[in-house]
Amino acid sequence: MKCAIITIGDEILIGQVVDTNAVWISQQLNNLGIRVEEMVTISDHPVQISNTLDRYLGLYQLLIMTGGLGPTRDDLTKQTLSDYFETRLVTHPEVLENITRFFKERGRTMIDSNIRQADVPESCRVLMNNHGTAPGMWFERKGTILISLPGVPYEMEGLMKDHVLPEMQRRVTVPHIVHKTIMTQGVPESYLAAMLRDWEASLPECVKLAYLPRPGIVRLRLTVVDKCAADAEQLLEVIIGKLLVIIPKHIFGFDDIRLEESLGNLLREKGMTLSTAESCTGGNIAHLITSVPGSSFYYTGSVIAYENRIKTEVLNVDQSIIDSRGVVSREVVEQMAKGVKELFGTDASISTSGIAGPDGGTKEKPVGTTWICVAYGQRNYSGKYQFGGSRERIIEQATYTAMQLMRRLILDLL
Amino acid sequence: MKCAIITIGDEILIGQVVDTNAVWISQQLNNLGIRVEEMVTISDHPVQISNTLDRYLGLYQLLIMTGGLGPTRDDLTKQTLSDYFETRLVTHPEVLENITRFFKERGRTMIDSNIRQADVPESCRVLMNNHGTAPGMWFERKGTILISLPGVPYEMEGLMKDHVLPEMQRRVTVPHIVHKTIMTQGVPESYLAAMLRDWEASLPECVKLAYLPRPGIVRLRLTVVDKCAADAEQLLEVIIGKLLVIIPKHIFGFDDIRLEESLGNLLREKGMTLSTAESCTGGNIAHLITSVPGSSFYYTGSVIAYENRIKTEVLNVDQSIIDSRGVVSREVVEQMAKGVKELFGTDASISTSGIAGPDGGTKEKPVGTTWICVAYGQRNYSGKYQFGGSRERIIEQATYTAMQLMRRLILDLL
Repeated sequence: MKCAIITIGDEILIGQVVDTNAVWISQQLNNLGIRVEEMVTISDHPVQISNTLDRYLGLYQLLIMTGGLGPTRDDLTKQTLSDYFETRLVTHPEVLENITRFFKERGRTMIDSNIRQADVPESCRVLMNNHGTAPGMWFERKGTILISLPGVPYEMEGLMKDHVLPEMQRRVTVPHIVHKTIMTQGVPESYLAAMLRDWEASLPECVKLAYLPRPGIVRLRLTVVDKCAADAEQLLEVIIGKLLVIIPKHIFGFDDIRLEESLGNLLREKGMTLSTAESCTGGNIAHLITSVPGSSFYYTGSVIAYENRIKTEVLNVDQSIIDSRGVVSREVVEQMAKGVKELFGTDASISTSGIAGPDGGTKEKPVGTTWICVAYGQRNYSGKYQFGGSRERIIEQATYTAMQLMRRLILDLL
Repeated sequence: MKCAIITIGDEILIGQVVDTNAVWISQQLNNLGIRVEEMVTISDHPVQISNTLDRYLGLYQLLIMTGGLGPTRDDLTKQTLSDYFETRLVTHPEVLENITRFFKERGRTMIDSNIRQADVPESCRVLMNNHGTAPGMWFERKGTILISLPGVPYEMEGLMKDHVLPEMQRRVTVPHIVHKTIMTQGVPESYLAAMLRDWEASLPECVKLAYLPRPGIVRLRLTVVDKCAADAEQLLEVIIGKLLVIIPKHIFGFDDIRLEESLGNLLREKGMTLSTAESCTGGNIAHLITSVPGSSFYYTGSVIAYENRIKTEVLNVDQSIIDSRGVVSREVVEQMAKGVKELFGTDASISTSGIAGPDGGTKEKPVGTTWICVAYGQRNYSGKYQFGGSRERIIEQATYTAMQLMRRLILDLL
């Protein structure tokens, strides 16, 4: 089954919103073996919507369209679909009931525009929205299934999970493409490619490798195409086994696991607790660690010591050390890690101090200079890193490097 | 000038990467009055790249293509463009020099794949990359400018800023479309629409309004189209003046300013300092505040008190209050805000305590229940909020609500 995703929204074309919906949808479909051949974004305008339907109906077996179903006046998709399929909008009692319940549960008053969301094209199959007020719509024409969903990500995701994905799973046969992603941290793309040259050259013809870099992290995606799909899982196991021998320090997991999840799993396994003392990363380590459900089992908390005074007064860093070595130094991060570990009574701790920029750099310590310390029991490791790019990129790289160092210290892989 | 953006990358079609490049590009072009009519994502495959060029060359005046120019074996775009335009790859001495310098500055060794990045199609105009190793390429065929850029966001952005945008600005005339975005926090989309119904109905025909919601924030985008473009700026000023009277509490700025920036600007203006004590938001408030350059002028730091023990031991919250009221309560957030304000010696403070989920909810305090306190001098405000959705969404909404409440307390707009 081949698919295209149509995203409707001027806000995307003028660059006000990033289209995360198309990515999420393609991910889900891919897991079912449904290949997304094209993603297209168009304006929230009846003519453009109709033209796009003209172009794609009959061409793909599945069209998923998101956006344009909100309660406000600027959303025109529902009326356009109704006109295009030569039907009319009628009030759907079950949808109206659902909307009414939705508002009652939240103790809010229902207004006209909310009620109008219960109007749907008469000829479509309605998909009940358990996460919001706009229903999904399912049409079948010219051998194409067209599904229209609201653009609000969690509503779209809810409708996909509740209705679209289960039904698609029933309709498609076993997937013919197998993917496996290996998550690495600490080596830039071109270096990694050089380290892996022989391994890459030894890959069988039916296995495709892609390098997917992002700040601080490179993902290696292995794809097995049809030819050898029967034993694909086993083939990948052997290939990955070889990789684990070449770069054991740099792999933190598989299949898009997040580094903070991988670190969390390790802490949980070992029954350890962790605290952090962040300066340049400004809470980003804490934020990522606590974004993982259940992180309160192993994560105690953090002192974000943004001002130097907090480093000395709360974390017990010596003022004399700051004066002599500078606040971005080995001694300071070591004292920060020790200070927070003692203050919070944890088994392990992470600390950072650096120059995130754009200002504050010197010749000796340019923007991007970052000291990181990780401590566990009586052992600690501290290191100086030179990160590049914007403030945001420097913070991200420092965050991932620090979490990976913590993992490596615990696993004795430094 | 009409434009389409072509993104190349299997990683996007299978849902491993979000295409932020297309959004950034369209934003920049829109500022120049160049309208992006279509965005399309295709596979990193020679046939699909050629087919897409066949379809778009001559149709749009400008085509911007990103992706497929990395140093690793899986990137095929450069060779495909060379073949498509019936030319050949030749080593470009200036690019080679640039790559050599790039590696020298970072103290890294250049490897074969890096050197090959200096090969470019003979017939193209080369755009020097000052932020990485892959050069950009500029072709003109059939009345279309085709620009190929690397997919790594900061390299693509660098090439756009250094070469593409300045040249496009010279080529286009004055923009015919004027946008203004009003940033609001604290009112869901449908309620906001109801509050603004009369104002919306009074908008002249040539002004288009769009509601752009995201967790905790709704953006109102006003667009003035050609007809009355001459006095567009003045017209928007009058329209926004009326809006400011209707929802003064909820507007925190214009034109995509971030709430954390708006709060930072206010603190800086007032010469105030801020600290935070976060439980359920887990460092996200600190992270956003410190993502703003220069935030060290007003932001002192944070205690992420994830475990209850940290609330009592570090922030001086009474254990008896936690026992009697529960950790998610008015009394606890008030003591947390007071505790961090005193510990860090700041003028103002923010605290949060809630149930981010997915576990930990009860009948009285379901997942999403969040107490927030903001304190400034002798005044404080605390309130209970019920947020919905995933853990991520609850954290986001709590974060934005807290920052907006801090602004409102300082501005006496509660």
